[in-house]
Amino acid sequence: MPETEVRAEVGSLQEVLAALSDPVRLEMVRRMHAAGAPAACAVLYDDVSKSTASHHFKILREAGVTQRSVIGGQTHQELRLEDVEAVYPGVLSSILAAPR
Amino acid sequence: MPETEVRAEVGSLQEVLAALSDPVRLEMVRRMHAAGAPAACAVLYDDVSKSTASHHFKILREAGVTQRSVIGGQTHQELRLEDVEAVYPGVLSSILAAPR
Repeated sequence: MPETEVRAEVGSLQEVLAALSDPVRLEMVRRMHAAGAPAACAVLYDDVSKSTASHHFKILREAGVTQRSVIGGQTHQELRLEDVEAVYPGVLSSILAAPR
Repeated sequence: MPETEVRAEVGSLQEVLAALSDPVRLEMVRRMHAAGAPAACAVLYDDVSKSTASHHFKILREAGVTQRSVIGGQTHQELRLEDVEAVYPGVLSSILAAPR
C-alpha cells in the first residue's frame, strides 16, 4: 500500500505561480500531468542533478501543486490538479495547456 | 496624443508567471485590470517606494504583461490582457479571477 503524505492546503496564488515560473519545475509538472498517475521522480527531469531535482520537487510540494508518495520503495510525484483547480479555477489547467 | 511605447512580444510563459508571482506586481495588475484603461502609476501601489514600484513596473512591462504610456506628461500603465490571452489563453484571466 503506498504511503502518501497527508495533503496540505494549496498554497497562496503567489506560491503557486512562483512554483510554476521555473522552467525545470514547469517541465516536471507537465510530465506529471502527462503521466496522469504518480510518476517516479527520475522520469520527471533530464538536465539537473538529483539534489537539484529534489529541491524543485520540494518547492512544488510546499506550494501544494504536487504530492509525494512512496510506491514499492520508490519515491513518486503526482500533480494535484483537481485540488489546485478547486482553489484557483483555470490557473493550472491553462498553464498546462499553454504553448511551450 | 498619448505616447505609447511600441508593443513588444509577450514574454515566455515563465516570464509571465514570474512577473505575476510577486504580490506587489499582482496587486498592480489587479488594479490596472479594475481601471480598464491606462492608470497613473501612483494609484497602482501603496506600500513601496516610487523606485521599487518602477522596478516592478519594468518587470511587468518586460514580460509583456503591461505597457507604459505618457498622458498629459504623466506616466501611465495599462494591462495587455488581450495580448497575453492571445498567446496563453486563460492564464492571465484566471489569475485575475482567482480569490485573494
